[in-house]
Amino acid sequence: MDTTSLIYVLSFLAIVIAFAFAAYLYLWVKKQKTVNKQILDVSELIKAGANTFMAREYRILAIFAGVAAVIIFLILPSPVWQGGSLLDNLAMALAYIAGTILSAIAGKIGILVATLANSRTAEAAQKGIKPAFLVGFRGGAVMGLAVVSFCLLGVMAVLLIAGDASILLGFSFGASSLALFAKAGGGIFTKTADVSADLTGKVELGIPEDDPRNPAVIADNVGDNVGDVAGMGADLFDSNVAAMTSALVIAQSLTGHEQAGTAMVFCYSALGLIASILGIACARIGKNGNPTKALNSSTYVTTGIFVVLSALATYLFEGFDWRIWGASTVGLLVGVIIGLTTDYFTDDSKPIVQRVAKASQSGSAFTVLSGVSYGFISALPAMVGIAISALAAYKLCEPLGSTYALFGIAMAAVGMLSIVGMIISNDAYGPIVDNARGLAEMGGLGEDTIRIADELDSAGNTVKAVTKGFSIGAAGLTVISLLGAYMSEVNATLASLGRELITGFDIMNPTVFFGVLIGAAVPAVFSAMLILGVDKNAQRMVAEIHRQFREIKGLREGKPGVKADYDTCIDIATTGALKELIPAGAMAIISTVLVGFIGGVLAIGGFLLGNIVSGLLLALFMSNAGGLWDNSKKYIEAGNEGGKGSKAHKAAVTGDTVGDPFKDTAGPSINTQITVVSLVASLLSSLFVAFSIF
Amino acid sequence: MDTTSLIYVLSFLAIVIAFAFAAYLYLWVKKQKTVNKQILDVSELIKAGANTFMAREYRILAIFAGVAAVIIFLILPSPVWQGGSLLDNLAMALAYIAGTILSAIAGKIGILVATLANSRTAEAAQKGIKPAFLVGFRGGAVMGLAVVSFCLLGVMAVLLIAGDASILLGFSFGASSLALFAKAGGGIFTKTADVSADLTGKVELGIPEDDPRNPAVIADNVGDNVGDVAGMGADLFDSNVAAMTSALVIAQSLTGHEQAGTAMVFCYSALGLIASILGIACARIGKNGNPTKALNSSTYVTTGIFVVLSALATYLFEGFDWRIWGASTVGLLVGVIIGLTTDYFTDDSKPIVQRVAKASQSGSAFTVLSGVSYGFISALPAMVGIAISALAAYKLCEPLGSTYALFGIAMAAVGMLSIVGMIISNDAYGPIVDNARGLAEMGGLGEDTIRIADELDSAGNTVKAVTKGFSIGAAGLTVISLLGAYMSEVNATLASLGRELITGFDIMNPTVFFGVLIGAAVPAVFSAMLILGVDKNAQRMVAEIHRQFREIKGLREGKPGVKADYDTCIDIATTGALKELIPAGAMAIISTVLVGFIGGVLAIGGFLLGNIVSGLLLALFMSNAGGLWDNSKKYIEAGNEGGKGSKAHKAAVTGDTVGDPFKDTAGPSINTQITVVSLVASLLSSLFVAFSIF
Repeated sequence: MDTTSLIYVLSFLAIVIAFAFAAYLYLWVKKQKTVNKQILDVSELIKAGANTFMAREYRILAIFAGVAAVIIFLILPSPVWQGGSLLDNLAMALAYIAGTILSAIAGKIGILVATLANSRTAEAAQKGIKPAFLVGFRGGAVMGLAVVSFCLLGVMAVLLIAGDASILLGFSFGASSLALFAKAGGGIFTKTADVSADLTGKVELGIPEDDPRNPAVIADNVGDNVGDVAGMGADLFDSNVAAMTSALVIAQSLTGHEQAGTAMVFCYSALGLIASILGIACARIGKNGNPTKALNSSTYVTTGIFVVLSALATYLFEGFDWRIWGASTVGLLVGVIIGLTTDYFTDDSKPIVQRVAKASQSGSAFTVLSGVSYGFISALPAMVGIAISALAAYKLCEPLGSTYALFGIAMAAVGMLSIVGMIISNDAYGPIVDNARGLAEMGGLGEDTIRIADELDSAGNTVKAVTKGFSIGAAGLTVISLLGAYMSEVNATLASLGRELITGFDIMNPTVFFGVLIGAAVPAVFSAMLILGVDKNAQRMVAEIHRQFREIKGLREGKPGVKADYDTCIDIATTGALKELIPAGAMAIISTVLVGFIGGVLAIGGFLLGNIVSGLLLALFMSNAGGLWDNSKKYIEAGNEGGKGSKAHKAAVTGDTVGDPFKDTAGPSINTQITVVSLVASLLSSLFVAFSIF
Repeated sequence: MDTTSLIYVLSFLAIVIAFAFAAYLYLWVKKQKTVNKQILDVSELIKAGANTFMAREYRILAIFAGVAAVIIFLILPSPVWQGGSLLDNLAMALAYIAGTILSAIAGKIGILVATLANSRTAEAAQKGIKPAFLVGFRGGAVMGLAVVSFCLLGVMAVLLIAGDASILLGFSFGASSLALFAKAGGGIFTKTADVSADLTGKVELGIPEDDPRNPAVIADNVGDNVGDVAGMGADLFDSNVAAMTSALVIAQSLTGHEQAGTAMVFCYSALGLIASILGIACARIGKNGNPTKALNSSTYVTTGIFVVLSALATYLFEGFDWRIWGASTVGLLVGVIIGLTTDYFTDDSKPIVQRVAKASQSGSAFTVLSGVSYGFISALPAMVGIAISALAAYKLCEPLGSTYALFGIAMAAVGMLSIVGMIISNDAYGPIVDNARGLAEMGGLGEDTIRIADELDSAGNTVKAVTKGFSIGAAGLTVISLLGAYMSEVNATLASLGRELITGFDIMNPTVFFGVLIGAAVPAVFSAMLILGVDKNAQRMVAEIHRQFREIKGLREGKPGVKADYDTCIDIATTGALKELIPAGAMAIISTVLVGFIGGVLAIGGFLLGNIVSGLLLALFMSNAGGLWDNSKKYIEAGNEGGKGSKAHKAAVTGDTVGDPFKDTAGPSINTQITVVSLVASLLSSLFVAFSIF
């Protein structure tokens, strides 16, 4: 068997093992007991709410994807009326559909296990932090393993069936469209509910976070699942597919080493999956252990295992180059470093969060101002990290040839995302324990259990900041290599027309510059539209909550037997989320198409650059500012700067409310926006060559 | 006489006329009467406070400029130890010093007349809106004319004496260093005082804006002068010098047409000055006229006059080309359009401001979220405008040759800034009438007079938004041409070393990309540092105000004879402002130097691009968000959404407090930061060529 076939077999084995392990963990979680009637009821409500949202979302998505698939069939890779091969176009359209479906299934599995694990974690918390941690973490791990396995399986299947990496662009675009819906739509849903619940509950009435009197409380818990579990999973599925796609597209141009390049991409991804399985299997805490430490140390274990395994593979397999391994390792290490700096800005045991908490004593304006400022500053280390890893990967691989240098950047992204199985596990743990905390409160499990759930929840928040830094960093590197993939596509078209190839995108060229300026404005407008969507939606929901408190007698006082109307709140969040996300997504895609048809391929090169740069800056700013506001509120609630109910606390709640759509709606959706725009550009490049004005 | 000499003579005549007109206006303002003893006292306090700040600022600046001049003498244009001509280096150092001094004088004149006009405007308001408007506007016009005349005089003198446009880079850098101090330092001062006065006065005690019991009230009025008059003047002096410099540097490479190119730059600038004089002379309002309309229509009159005059000149003078005229006209028109779109987002008779006011009913978090969102969206039209004007200017002039195309962009910037005399007049009008409003309140001039002063003040705010859009747009175009100037400098060095020239900055080159990412982070960090500076400083001042209310018996109740200690507040603002701005400025300069020595000239090209793009985005976002918060607060105070004292009003005050450092400290300082960084890059380019690591 040659190396490539061997790698395919190994990858397939890794996928099988991962699915088996995920199935085992799922059954293990399912086996845990839930006995508390109230918890069972509420968790059923959450599950039903999440399923309602997902069903509606997927229905709209199916229409969207159907239309998109027809368009793709008609024009890509080349328009049918220009004699494009019907078979190629069909392959592209099918790959697109496969991308949406696999991502949707992964999201669905995540919701399934998360809504199962939440109640079980709550009950386990009665027995102590150790068993509760395990249930929460293993629930998240099912999601992590499913996402990565589906990703690897899908990419491998498309490549083997189509035999052409550029068809993967269609698959990747499918994953991106779904991610746009899942992440942005879920993000609007979750924050609509969260903001409304907080404003009416904590601020106006002074009742606790998960008080069942609050009509938005179920929607809030549903939101954690659809936004953080399904949305985040789709987002990282998308990033991972995009990273692999761009590496595989570039590998095709490594003349004479196409096979080895392709093999390296699959080999490293499969090893990352194996490393994640081992890391997940190792994760546990002592009886009074620290959950944050447990989560972070399993990340480090996974990282270590991956570095060793990939080095071993590079040593063993023919055609694998140490320089490429170096690039992938640099990517992974920079990912860890970005995670650590994010942690510095968002961890409440570090000075920044405490300073923002202190500033809150002078009023909410100061909370906002200091949070915005530190948010901006926090972008610097990550931007420098991405800049250095791209430069280092390039320089490291440059001696092999200039295409290798570009391949090096793509492999740095693959390296950074290699441990994505572990990252998703940690990330999905967050909403599960957040839900568990709510269930413990609503089920009346007592102070001690709630305290344990709180501790698990706080670890989820801290770890989330780290994983977010990681995924933004990886998106940065991926889109750099997508820029390379875009240029290859453009040059392939130009070559087929016998026209002069482009050698790059010179910023002194005003057409490129034109694209840069407009591309830079798009993520700002995109995130603004999402935030306004949350804003509008939350105002509707706040009005509904006020109505319920006014009209449902005895609700405010918590009279036994009086129930809030949870469903109407879920309905508002669902309808609004889907209504608000479509214009934002359309704006991003339409502006790409407009710039392409006005300024041509050079303008699009600039457009992608502007989009990446301002997108990274804003995504980092929003995610980190939101995280630090959240944690500075928690820091005050832990009794500092006057504690709960103080003036500083009120100000911190305002900060947290501002930060919510920053960190959970707009910030993480920007990633997806960047990927979508990059893929649209690559897919339509031949049309831009043919039909642009300038 | 040849065309060039004729243009020099005409320009000189325009300068003389402008100075004479400014002197006439100054004497006219001085002649107006002030009789109210209390107003005289307070205005003396304001004047003394402003002079204290300016004296301290200029002292620190003198040290900074002295050190910088010595460094420039030693290394620029070429290091003395490498046999650089001592005379050239001396010329560069002297040009630098001249740039700082001329800008400082212009600022000083502005303060002089503004602190004279404020009390006279207040007294004139007793007689009606017509005379009061005239005093305020003419006071501002003295500043406008002085800035433009000094700019034109300085640029002409340096060019004629040195005979080499690249020495102008030194002059321009001098103007930029001063602008950095004046704009950022003044911006921190003014917002420290404003934020503290608002928070303690309006929010905590519920006393009116300019109540003399508030210890920060004098500092607040001083701030209007040092931040908005002196700071804004220095900023636009800097932009104007930079625009002319980059056009003149590029004109030197118009082989065979150096003279004509140079003549066009001076001719258009001089005609802009004449158009401004005519526009200023025409500005007046009827007895019950609308001051906003009067200000805006004089801007349009000036624009019209300039377009006609410049067309006439292009027709008359040999070597002037219609394509270049077209570029300059496109620049000016786009400036007007950017101004109008800014107005749409910040005017309280338009929907956006009203929507933010409505959102405030749900609490301050919604004020912040909606303001941030609309602020981001508002950046789009301006970015598109700048992109289109650069592209149009380039394409228009491209048939003349590629250097002409670059010259076209520079001339678009010169065109946009041609009417800067008018712009500054309108801008300086704002703080004068703002002060007048304060004086009317403190002098007890009665309800009617305060109402008139309020109307004048509100016009100042609206117009400010327009002029700010204008100046950011011009800065955008200027820095694009500075990028061209940077490349010429680099290639001059490379040619002298016999090395291969660079043809541009390709974003696919990871060294360029490395620069782009870091350059994009700098404006974010820079503005964050300034905002944190205001934040820290305001916290100190709030503490001081609390101390005074606690310790000075009878102050809170307004017992006759009991006075607040205004000086300590001015002291805190002054010391803090100067302390906080230095690290921010140093960060921007040091990161440029670091990137240059690490990545070399290509990385710096990327760095400048990233800096421009994210700088423009953030400057537009911050200025517009701040403006719309300010006006939505005013809109509520006018009796909408519950009016003064309502919940919405409290939320709007928080929004305004957040917006204050956005719009008056960080936002407008980013312009200067971009120019400083561009000039540092151009000046040090030969060192980057010689000593970089990569």
